[in-house]
Amino acid sequence: MRIVDIRDTVVPIKSDIANAYIDFSKMTVSVVAVITDLVRDGKPIVGFGFNSNGRYAQQGLLRERFIPRLKEAKSVDLIDAAGTNLDPHKMWDVMMKNEKPGGHGERSVAVGIVDMAVWDAVAKIEDKPLYRLLAERYRGGEVDQTVSIYAAGGYYYPGKGLQGLKDEMRSYLDRGYTAVKMKVGGVPLAEDLKRIEAVIEVVGEGKNVAVDVNGRFDIEQAIAFGKAIKPYKLRWYEEVGDPLDYALQKELAEHYELPMATGENLFSMVDARNLIRYGGMRTGLDILQFDPALSYGLVEYLRTLDMLREYGFSPRDCTPHGGHQMALNIAAGLGLGGNESYPDVFRPFNGFADNIAVENGRVRMPDLPGIGFEAKKELYPHMKELAGL
Amino acid sequence: MRIVDIRDTVVPIKSDIANAYIDFSKMTVSVVAVITDLVRDGKPIVGFGFNSNGRYAQQGLLRERFIPRLKEAKSVDLIDAAGTNLDPHKMWDVMMKNEKPGGHGERSVAVGIVDMAVWDAVAKIEDKPLYRLLAERYRGGEVDQTVSIYAAGGYYYPGKGLQGLKDEMRSYLDRGYTAVKMKVGGVPLAEDLKRIEAVIEVVGEGKNVAVDVNGRFDIEQAIAFGKAIKPYKLRWYEEVGDPLDYALQKELAEHYELPMATGENLFSMVDARNLIRYGGMRTGLDILQFDPALSYGLVEYLRTLDMLREYGFSPRDCTPHGGHQMALNIAAGLGLGGNESYPDVFRPFNGFADNIAVENGRVRMPDLPGIGFEAKKELYPHMKELAGL
Repeated sequence: MRIVDIRDTVVPIKSDIANAYIDFSKMTVSVVAVITDLVRDGKPIVGFGFNSNGRYAQQGLLRERFIPRLKEAKSVDLIDAAGTNLDPHKMWDVMMKNEKPGGHGERSVAVGIVDMAVWDAVAKIEDKPLYRLLAERYRGGEVDQTVSIYAAGGYYYPGKGLQGLKDEMRSYLDRGYTAVKMKVGGVPLAEDLKRIEAVIEVVGEGKNVAVDVNGRFDIEQAIAFGKAIKPYKLRWYEEVGDPLDYALQKELAEHYELPMATGENLFSMVDARNLIRYGGMRTGLDILQFDPALSYGLVEYLRTLDMLREYGFSPRDCTPHGGHQMALNIAAGLGLGGNESYPDVFRPFNGFADNIAVENGRVRMPDLPGIGFEAKKELYPHMKELAGL
Repeated sequence: MRIVDIRDTVVPIKSDIANAYIDFSKMTVSVVAVITDLVRDGKPIVGFGFNSNGRYAQQGLLRERFIPRLKEAKSVDLIDAAGTNLDPHKMWDVMMKNEKPGGHGERSVAVGIVDMAVWDAVAKIEDKPLYRLLAERYRGGEVDQTVSIYAAGGYYYPGKGLQGLKDEMRSYLDRGYTAVKMKVGGVPLAEDLKRIEAVIEVVGEGKNVAVDVNGRFDIEQAIAFGKAIKPYKLRWYEEVGDPLDYALQKELAEHYELPMATGENLFSMVDARNLIRYGGMRTGLDILQFDPALSYGLVEYLRTLDMLREYGFSPRDCTPHGGHQMALNIAAGLGLGGNESYPDVFRPFNGFADNIAVENGRVRMPDLPGIGFEAKKELYPHMKELAGL
C-alpha cells in the first residue's frame, strides 16, 4: 500500500466566547486528509485529523515541513512490516526528522493533526473503530463501552448574566450531562462566587462543578480563590497558574487539599514529566488533562502514559482536554478517566457521534471504522470535500 | 509616526553539516522588514530581523497571526507615549494577544524575528547603535566596548577526518579566536576523545575547548562521557541531555563539577526559570545559553534577565546561542558574559561586522545605528531587497 496524497485546509471556528485568557472569535482549525491507495466500497480509504481548540490552524508548519517530509519519504518508511497498513510510529519519526529537542509548541499541534489522520486511516484499513484497535494493541483487548464526560462551558459572553449561565447549565443536564465546567478568574472573586453558586443551584452539588482559571492566577490569587471555593467541594480547580509554573501548582496543593486539574498546555512527554516531577500532582485525586491532539498526537501520548505509569500514575488519572473524538477513542480504548465535551462551542469540531445520546454523564462508543467522523453530519462535509470523496 | 508595511521572506542556509541531532542541509531563515514612515537621507527607516539557526523559517506563523495582528492594530498601540518611536513592549503585547500560555516553540521564534526588526528600527530612529540604546535604557549607560566570543564549529561533515578538524580549528585561531566549540556525541566515545585531543593539540589547552552534545545523551551516557572528559578540564560540557530534562542536568552536576552550559532550546522566561529552579545550575560556573532571537525576542529576554537576578544569577552568567548580531548587541549593552560566533557556517546570517577583526577572542562593536546589519555585505542585500531600498 501507499499514500496517494496528503491535503490540508483551514476551517474557522467562530465562537463569540472568551475565557480568562483569550477570545475565540478568530480561532481557526486545520483539517488534514491522508489519502491511501486502498479502496473500499469503490472509494479510497482516507484518514482525517484536525487540531484541538485553543491553539490555531497550522497550515504554515504543515506545508513547510511536516507534509513535505511525508511526501518525500519512501513508502517503506511509512508502512508496517507486512506492508498492509500505515505505521503511525514510523510516520511520526519521519515527520520529526531534523527537528531539535525542546520547544514543544505549534509543531506539536501540526504533528498531532497528521497523527490523528494516520490513526483514523489505520483503524479504517483494519475496518474497526479506533478505540477497539487501541484496546487490542495496547490493553489486551479490554474496551470501556462508555466514557465519563462533562460539559465544558460557562464562558464569559458579552451580556451573559447569572440567568444565562443557569439556563446554559440546565440545558446540559437536559441533554444527559451530570457534571459541568465553568470559567472563572475573568471577573472579581465575589462575582465569580455568585456565578459558582448559581451553577450549583442548577446541578445540585459542588462535586458536579469544575472551575477553570485558564492559567491566570499568581500564587496569592490562587490561594485566596482556593480558600474561597473550598466550602463548595468542587469537582476540580483547573489550570490555576501558568501551565509551566510547577512550583505554583505544588505550593497550591499545600493549601488546597481537594482535586485540582492541569496539563492541557503541556505539549510533550517531557513537559508532562516535569509536571509530574515538580508539580506535586496527587494520583487518584488530581486530573491530568494533556491533550493528545495538541501534543504530537497519540504516538507521543503513548509515551506519556508509559511515563505516568513509571511515576505511579494510572491512565484513569487522565481526562484529556479538547472534547474531540480522538481523545474519546483513546479514553475508551486505553481506559482513561474520562473526556472533556463541548456541547455548544467550537462547532463543527465539538461533540461526538450525532446519534448517540449522553446518558447519566456517560457516552457510548459508536461502532464505526476509524475515529468516527462520518457520524457527525456538521463536521464530515468539510473532510469529504477536502478528500474529494 | 507609523508603520507603513511589514514584509517577510525566506532565505535558505544551505550548510553541509550535522550536529548530534539534525542535519542543516534543509535549514531556512525568515527575514522580516518593519518599514516606518520616518525618512533619513531620503530613505525610509527600516528595521530588520531574522531567526536564529537551529529552528526553521516561520513564514506560516508570521503571515497567519503575528504580522496581521500588528497591521490591524492602531498606531497608538504600537508607538511610545511621545509618538516618536516604536515601543517594542507594546508591539510584543499586540503580537501575543489571543495566545494561550504554555507551548513555547515556533511562535517564540516568529515573535523573536519581529522583535529583532523592531529593536533595529527603534535604535535607528534614535540614530544610535542598539547596544548603546540598551545600555542607556537598562544599564545606566555602561557599555562593554568588546565582547568575548568563541568560534562554534567542529561539526561532523561527511568525510571530515581529524586533520580536517584540526585545520578548521587552526583557521579560527588564525582569525583571532582563542576559544572554540566542537560537536560531540555523534560517534563512539573513543572516537570523540581522539577528536577532542586533536583540537586541544591545536588550541593549546582544554579551557579553550567547549564540547556540545546537542541534547543526545541519557544520564548514563552523560555521566560516562563526563568522566572521560574530566581530565581535559574543558571550557564547558554543553546541552548534554534533553533540554527539558532538568533532573538529568541536576544529577549530572553531582558527577561533573566543571563548567556546564545549556538553555539554547528553552524558549521563554518560564522555561528558563524551570531550568534555574530544578536544573542545579551554578552561578559563576555554568553558562546560560538562552537565545533571545528564538525566545520571543529581547522583550522576553529582559524578563529572563530579571528572573535570573531574582535567583542570584548575573547577566555575566549568560552567553547566548545563535552567533547573531542581535545577541552581540545585547551582550555589549546589557553586560552578558559573551556571545557565540559561527565563523564559517550558517552564511549569510553568521558573523558580525565585516570590517571588525576578532582580536584575542574578543570583538569590538561597530558604531552604526541599529543592530548593524548594514556592515555585512553578504547579508544586507537580502534585507535591502525585501524592503525595496
